Amino acid sequence: MPTDAEIRTALETYVDCWRTNDRERWLQLFSSDAEFIDPVGTPAHEGKDAVAAFWDRVHTMPMEMKPEVDRIVACGGEGVLVFRMKAVAANGMGMEVSVVDLFQFNDAGEVTQLKAYWDSKCQRGIRP
Amino acid sequence: MPTDAEIRTALETYVDCWRTNDRERWLQLFSSDAEFIDPVGTPAHEGKDAVAAFWDRVHTMPMEMKPEVDRIVACGGEGVLVFRMKAVAANGMGMEVSVVDLFQFNDAGEVTQLKAYWDSKCQRGIRP
Repeated sequence: MPTDAEIRTALETYVDCWRTNDRERWLQLFSSDAEFIDPVGTPAHEGKDAVAAFWDRVHTMPMEMKPEVDRIVACGGEGVLVFRMKAVAANGMGMEVSVVDLFQFNDAGEVTQLKAYWDSKCQRGIRP
Repeated sequence: MPTDAEIRTALETYVDCWRTNDRERWLQLFSSDAEFIDPVGTPAHEGKDAVAAFWDRVHTMPMEMKPEVDRIVACGGEGVLVFRMKAVAANGMGMEVSVVDLFQFNDAGEVTQLKAYWDSKCQRGIRP
């Protein structure tokens, strides 16, 4: 089980990769058999290739991803990221989603499962 | 699986019972075999009697519980409560803990598991 400090670092890296558009470093966080569910209630993306495909699909949008962290929690070998993901187009229009991400890890400190909790009430439009 | 609206109502009731000190209504939210883990990483309170004992232990403190909700999320049959629990003594001194509660339900809409995510960085003192 990773330490609280290792979990905290992993979640900070996760956010930083969204912010800097670092696909390879982001993918390195996940185990080969990782399960990615975003939002919870939709089908899981299973395995690193499926997780990579999720990243790639998001990045086909002509939007800049600007995550803003409200809180990172590490306890009992699990991690929680409370944040807002802002997706902003060149004209300043966009969308903000308030998300709670729940991370599970293996003993190597890799993310084995990520469950993203948000619903329609967590979304709001962004105007320039 | 309960609907999103039923999950939302259950979480609102959960908070309201803390606010109004309504032990019986709060306990009714849980299944007989409910598992209550607060915070995650500490031993689970298993079964309704153990959940009741948790409530009673918290309420031996001479503090008023004042929950403030930041967000309720319902998706995929699960519920997430993002809130701050303020515990305030008669002299106005107290403690605030920022918590993410994750709720699981059975088909009857009863809470079968509650996992509370918070760590030492989520606490701050309250002064009059």
